[in-house]
Amino acid sequence: YSLTRSLLSVFEEDAGMLTEYTNQLLQSMQRVFGAQSEMGLATEQLSQRLLEYEKKNFALGKGDEEVISTLQNFAKSVGELNSLHSELANQMADSMVFPLIQFREKDLTEISTLKEIFGIATDEHEAAMVKYSRLPKKKENEKLKADLVKEVAYTRRKQHQASLQYYCALNALQYRKRVAMLEPMLGYTQAQISFFKKGIELVSKKMDTFLSSVSNMMQK
Amino acid sequence: YSLTRSLLSVFEEDAGMLTEYTNQLLQSMQRVFGAQSEMGLATEQLSQRLLEYEKKNFALGKGDEEVISTLQNFAKSVGELNSLHSELANQMADSMVFPLIQFREKDLTEISTLKEIFGIATDEHEAAMVKYSRLPKKKENEKLKADLVKEVAYTRRKQHQASLQYYCALNALQYRKRVAMLEPMLGYTQAQISFFKKGIELVSKKMDTFLSSVSNMMQK
Repeated sequence: YSLTRSLLSVFEEDAGMLTEYTNQLLQSMQRVFGAQSEMGLATEQLSQRLLEYEKKNFALGKGDEEVISTLQNFAKSVGELNSLHSELANQMADSMVFPLIQFREKDLTEISTLKEIFGIATDEHEAAMVKYSRLPKKKENEKLKADLVKEVAYTRRKQHQASLQYYCALNALQYRKRVAMLEPMLGYTQAQISFFKKGIELVSKKMDTFLSSVSNMMQK
Repeated sequence: YSLTRSLLSVFEEDAGMLTEYTNQLLQSMQRVFGAQSEMGLATEQLSQRLLEYEKKNFALGKGDEEVISTLQNFAKSVGELNSLHSELANQMADSMVFPLIQFREKDLTEISTLKEIFGIATDEHEAAMVKYSRLPKKKENEKLKADLVKEVAYTRRKQHQASLQYYCALNALQYRKRVAMLEPMLGYTQAQISFFKKGIELVSKKMDTFLSSVSNMMQK
């Protein structure tokens, strides 16, 4: 029993540390996601601003046609970049932040619920045993004694069941934890790979053209 | 003179609009730069967090070696990604935000300084003319009259000079403005191209390996 207890406390300490670590990791991931979302919004605003140049209708814009059409083209590229940023932010939310939230809400919450149930069952079993041990050894208590024996047996069964469920969940957590740590990273990596693949296509097709046309213009 | 005046007001209106637009554009660019900086910091924090997993020293981490080494590897890749983000943020600051700030501080501020100088010179010239016109037509005023004629001529010359400088600057602004609008975009584009080129290298070399090894682990 004492061995079980000390093993249990090791499991519990691990689960507590894991909960703490999960919360910190989740915070970092949400910060990355937040930065990525803001990047999408900021890029969108920049693209809008560039389009506004034309609407300013500068009176002395006679030589501006070239600048305007370049800025328009550029705004389009920035707009496409903005789509990539938004897509990346969405993928981060879905496949990095969400799995870890689910791990916390489902697995870690289950542990603490089962721990609570196990605690209540232990208390009930101990209360039944105390009641039984305090019973005066008189003949007329036979009926009451039989009832208490039943209660002790019932609460012991209940406690045993609760402990099994709790131990099982703690044990399963050791395996779940590995997937829980790796799954968000897998999501993050896939999102980054897709982002860079689409990004390199965008910059090599559109932005390279923009780059050379602007360089030419500025040398004039 | 009236034609000059109305042409001047067109130039001035344009310069005013350009100042307003420059400030808005600068705001958008600073927002993009801010998001990019935050992305670097957030990515760095995530990389640190992943490294902390090992230090947690989970008691029941017997099967964790594989997870730990995967997270370490992953943290390294995230760290390299963080370098790319910081580099991008620095390039944005140097070649997108800075040129536009310089345009505002140098060219636009020069315009408003020259406008002020021109205004003062105009006032002085008008004051001299008013003094001259109010001079009583008496013989004994000959000396004073000669002085005032000199003053009128002197202030006219000064005003003429100030107006030339102001007109020239307004005119030059029409050309400077094109470069000023395109230069930051050129910087932005070059920074993005370099970011995606390095990024695709990073993800195709390191992250692809990570991806397949984690996929394998998670299927086990």
